Amino acid sequence: MGPLVHHVFFWLKNPESLEDKQQLIEGIKKLKTIEQVADIHIGVPASTEQRDVVETTYSVTEMLIFANEEDEAIYQNHHIHQEFVDKYQHLWSKVLVYDSKSVIK
Amino acid sequence: MGPLVHHVFFWLKNPESLEDKQQLIEGIKKLKTIEQVADIHIGVPASTEQRDVVETTYSVTEMLIFANEEDEAIYQNHHIHQEFVDKYQHLWSKVLVYDSKSVIK
Repeated sequence: MGPLVHHVFFWLKNPESLEDKQQLIEGIKKLKTIEQVADIHIGVPASTEQRDVVETTYSVTEMLIFANEEDEAIYQNHHIHQEFVDKYQHLWSKVLVYDSKSVIK
Repeated sequence: MGPLVHHVFFWLKNPESLEDKQQLIEGIKKLKTIEQVADIHIGVPASTEQRDVVETTYSVTEMLIFANEEDEAIYQNHHIHQEFVDKYQHLWSKVLVYDSKSVIK
């Protein structure tokens, strides 16, 4: 697993719309083609035990693995990423990002 | 990458204490020994660009990969995980968990 984990959670404007959810997932898939993306996880809330500490209100999540902060910065400014934001941002009402750096190998 | 991503964020009671942070990291490392844990990432906030959507106030994060929800449930009840919670929970003031299930391979 790489040293920089970029984890993004999306809350859709229309969380009940399976079509909107699928559109967003299809959009995220294209991010895989960006050279700096070492690995990708695209997910939805899992059916694990519901506990107070578990956040389950988001609709879709993407987790991208980068070798380092420099690659993440290149990704942010990459035209494929910019096109993703331009094309799909009308679908979401909120985005939350967690960028973490590995402290162990 | 496995199909179930269990991502936990910890806010320390004493976020300025490097000792508390290191203690928690050492505790998390022991979770790797649980058979159901397919992979682990232990991290701290990365020095990526600061944007409104980026959450950087947590102190430590752990991300565990499981094959499926069943393995995650076994992990939750595993004595090594229970001991981790008992021993280290005095260090944190808040925990937030995101469990997501892969929608693509």
